[in-house]
Formats: sequence, C-alpha cells, structure tokens
Amino acid sequence: MIQKIDTIKKMQAISDKLRAENKIIACVPTMGYLHEGHLSLISKAREKADIVVTTLFVNPTQFGPNDDYEKYPRNVEADTKNAEKAGCDYLFVPNVDEMYSKNFQTTIHLSEITRKFEGEFRPGHFDGVATVVAKLFNAVKPHFAVFGRKDYQQTLVIKQMVKDLNIDVDIIVVNTVREKDGLAKSSRNVYLDADSREKATILFRTLKSAERMLLNGERKRFLINKEMENILNSIEDLKIDYAAAALSDNLAEPDEFSDNDEIVLLIAAKLGNTRLIDNLIVKI
Amino acid sequence: MIQKIDTIKKMQAISDKLRAENKIIACVPTMGYLHEGHLSLISKAREKADIVVTTLFVNPTQFGPNDDYEKYPRNVEADTKNAEKAGCDYLFVPNVDEMYSKNFQTTIHLSEITRKFEGEFRPGHFDGVATVVAKLFNAVKPHFAVFGRKDYQQTLVIKQMVKDLNIDVDIIVVNTVREKDGLAKSSRNVYLDADSREKATILFRTLKSAERMLLNGERKRFLINKEMENILNSIEDLKIDYAAAALSDNLAEPDEFSDNDEIVLLIAAKLGNTRLIDNLIVKI
Repeated sequence: MIQKIDTIKKMQAISDKLRAENKIIACVPTMGYLHEGHLSLISKAREKADIVVTTLFVNPTQFGPNDDYEKYPRNVEADTKNAEKAGCDYLFVPNVDEMYSKNFQTTIHLSEITRKFEGEFRPGHFDGVATVVAKLFNAVKPHFAVFGRKDYQQTLVIKQMVKDLNIDVDIIVVNTVREKDGLAKSSRNVYLDADSREKATILFRTLKSAERMLLNGERKRFLINKEMENILNSIEDLKIDYAAAALSDNLAEPDEFSDNDEIVLLIAAKLGNTRLIDNLIVKI
Repeated sequence: MIQKIDTIKKMQAISDKLRAENKIIACVPTMGYLHEGHLSLISKAREKADIVVTTLFVNPTQFGPNDDYEKYPRNVEADTKNAEKAGCDYLFVPNVDEMYSKNFQTTIHLSEITRKFEGEFRPGHFDGVATVVAKLFNAVKPHFAVFGRKDYQQTLVIKQMVKDLNIDVDIIVVNTVREKDGLAKSSRNVYLDADSREKATILFRTLKSAERMLLNGERKRFLINKEMENILNSIEDLKIDYAAAALSDNLAEPDEFSDNDEIVLLIAAKLGNTRLIDNLIVKI
C-alpha cells in the first residue's frame, strides 16, 4: 500500500531508516498530474531500486508571473492510484508552506547552461528548478533519481548542479513517451482543444524532418534551424519560441556540426495559450 | 592515526561506510592554519560524535579580487598534527581543481541575510561561503557541523541555507576563543606587526564598552553605534567598515532595542592592510 508523506522531517526519517536497512532508494520528482511519461519514470526506478519515492509538488518558484502556475492541472487522487499501480512505495506531497517557509531566501543558480532556450524564454525558471530539486533530494535522500528527457535542458541543469555541488545522487534520464501520432506526453496537453491537439503533432514531425536532414548529411546549423522554422510556421496560431539544433552535452551551437557529434533538436512553441516543448537526440 | 582524504568520492565512500555502521559524523569546516579557536570546534565535535572530519580548504570563491586569497596563511603539516591532537579522525583536504572543475557554474545565493555588514563590504563573499559549505556537507555527509561564532553573520547564513534547502545537518556554534587581552583568535592575526597587534585589542574593548551601555539601560541604536565608532576612531591607522548593534537572530536594526531583545554587536575594521572582525552577543 502506497504511503503519503507530507512533511520533510517525516520523509527524512523514513529515508534514514531505509538507508540503515541498506535499501536502495529512488526518487522520481514530478509536478503531479501523472501521465504515461511519468509512469515510465516510476517503472524505470522500480527496476533498480528497493524503494521508489515519487514526489508530487507543483513548484511555484519555477513558474514566471505570466506562467500557468495557478491553473496547472492537479489530481492527487488519480496520481496516488497510478503511482501505486506503477510500483511506487511512497508519495512525497508537501504543501507550499512546508517547502517555502515565510522567511525563505535561498536560490541555487547555474550560469552557462541556463542562459539559452528555456532559460531565455522563462527567466528564473531554472533557478526554481535547481533549488526545488536540491530540496527534494535533501528530503528524500535517494541513491538515484529519474527524470524524463522531454525537459532536455532541465536534465542538463540537474546533472550540472549535482556535479558542481557534490550531490551524491545518480541521475537517470528516460526517453520521452509519445502519443501514437508522436505528440510528447505532457500534463499540459489537457489544455489543448481538438484543433490545437491536431496541430500540436507538428512539433514531432518537425523534429523528425530535421533529423532526416542531419542523417542525410546536412551539417549547417542555420539550414537545419531554418527548416524547422519553415515547417512550424506552416501552422496557423503557432508561435515559435525557439527551434534549434545544438550539441547535446552543453547546448553549444557551432555553425557546422561534425561527424560523431551528438545533436539535440529543441523546439518550444505556443499554440494559442498552451506552450509546448519537445526535443530529439540525433547521433550523426 | 588521522587520515588525510583528498577526493570527494573517497570522502563520500568513507562517510557512507561509517553511516552504515551507525557512526555519528561531525564536520568542522575550516580554511586551515588552525588556531585554538578551530581546535575548540574540533573538541566540541569530539564530545558528541563518533567520527570527526575536519575540512581544510582555502576557498577561492569567498575571496574578493582585492582580498587576501593568495597570501592567506597555510600550513597543512602543523594543521594535521594539531587536528589529530584535538581528536580529529579525518582531514578532508581537496585541492581547488577537485572542488571546482573547469566547467563549474553553480552558485547558492541567500538574499536578506547577506545584504548587510560582511555582505556589503565583501560582495559575493557569502555566495562563496554558502556554495562551498553545501559542497563540503555533500562530501562529508555529517550529522552535525561545528562553526565558530567569530564569523557571526556566516553562522546565520549557514543556518538559513540549511533550513531553506532541507539540509539534514545540525549546526552547532561555539563561542569565540580569545587571547588574554581579548583579541579574537584568527588565522589573519599573523599579519599583524607588534604595533597593530597592540592596537587590535581595541575591537574587543569597544564591544565590551557597548555591552556596558546596553546593560546600563541604553536602548537607542545610534548612540550605541556612535559610542563604538568614537572608541574605534581613537586609534590611528584604523578604518571602520562597520560598527553596529543589531538583533542577533536576523540582523535587523530597529531604532530602539527592547527589553528581552538579544543583540549582537558587530565590528569590522582594517588595521593597515589587515581586516579584522569581531562580535559580542548581549542579552538585555
């Protein structure tokens, strides 16, 4: 039976006890409203851990003033059932006051890796992410944590923070789960009406088209980016934040890629009021 | 026999093993050049822990460009002997490359508590302190850590960070150790020539004088500050950075203190090229 924990102290006490029993603890940080993407993270955690802790916390500090914090979808009851079914042992569900006391004043900031892409379009977003992930790790004390590749830059930010701060938690990244038509699973997909849902498939189709260019030998970055922009711009109501090819390990953007580079294709775009992101890794 | 550890991975492996054996681990973070003040921290740690880890690391990121990083006194050999004598089990002595890899890009920043006093006169200092202390805690994995009260604001910054980031390390603060004439023990005292060494006693005498004012019923902050400034200014070559009374728990500066307030008197001043700090807690 899955157990819900809502205070940091209780979570730490449980983890201390489990560690004293030599249990391997996995942490799956989420903002809840779990979909198959999240459940695949829990399954991956389940494979390698004795104990799986899923965290459900819609973290206010990673939302900007115009972001969708208030309306971000929530359903703790369904999440509890789904997490249990996927093999989760503990659900850590602190409320906002538990995580951010009145006098809260600490921020973890990363420089280079947060400057572009999501960092540019969502100022402060990665400060919020880095800080809350450090807090969640200190509450759950896991041996490893599992994140989805859909938030590609986030996985780089977290890996960098873990390395820089000597945080003794292994980071495992799991492939994006997609709908049959290629749309990346996302809690925000519920915002899409039928028309936008249809149009949203353009993100994955664009990524696949750019992937083909790379696999067919194109190495010029601006041509690949241009191709992605052209395809995306064919959709009415779609506003591109970025559509870019970069090196997968540090998001550097050379004018020309080289053979043996691993490239990440990154897209963020708004369809009406709904902001969608997706990415694809290409080894050339 | 004391053991020296110079890599984060080795330190973490040792701590994991000790924790699996249910040992209580204490961490005493220092920049080395240990004096009796440091040794009193190790003794305090010794009282309550099974294993005492002292860290020796002159942390470049907490020094400003005009600070004394390069010439900061170092003597690992003497430190090793003294730490062992005081009851230390492990010396964690990473080098700068071990602590800050080429691609390092993470900073922990605290807002309110770092704005005044040391934070004002040493911009970036507390970012360096907070970041390195988090790194040292993640390397040593202690149950508690011991700091000296001489760096008063630093103890507040660390307590705040530990609370904000859910770091499961108890913070113990130990009283300042002083020379017979009242000068607070400090690694930087070696910079003082005979004349400056004599003059340096003015800091503690000033604190005691302000303490008497408070104990005699003076509650007006500006009068207490003025008294400290007047005494300090009687010394030639002395340049005050600040001489201030504040509430001890958050460094707030009300115009008038109240009965039952706990007050900290804080001084930072330069004698020639040597910057000295000291403080005194007064319960009224």
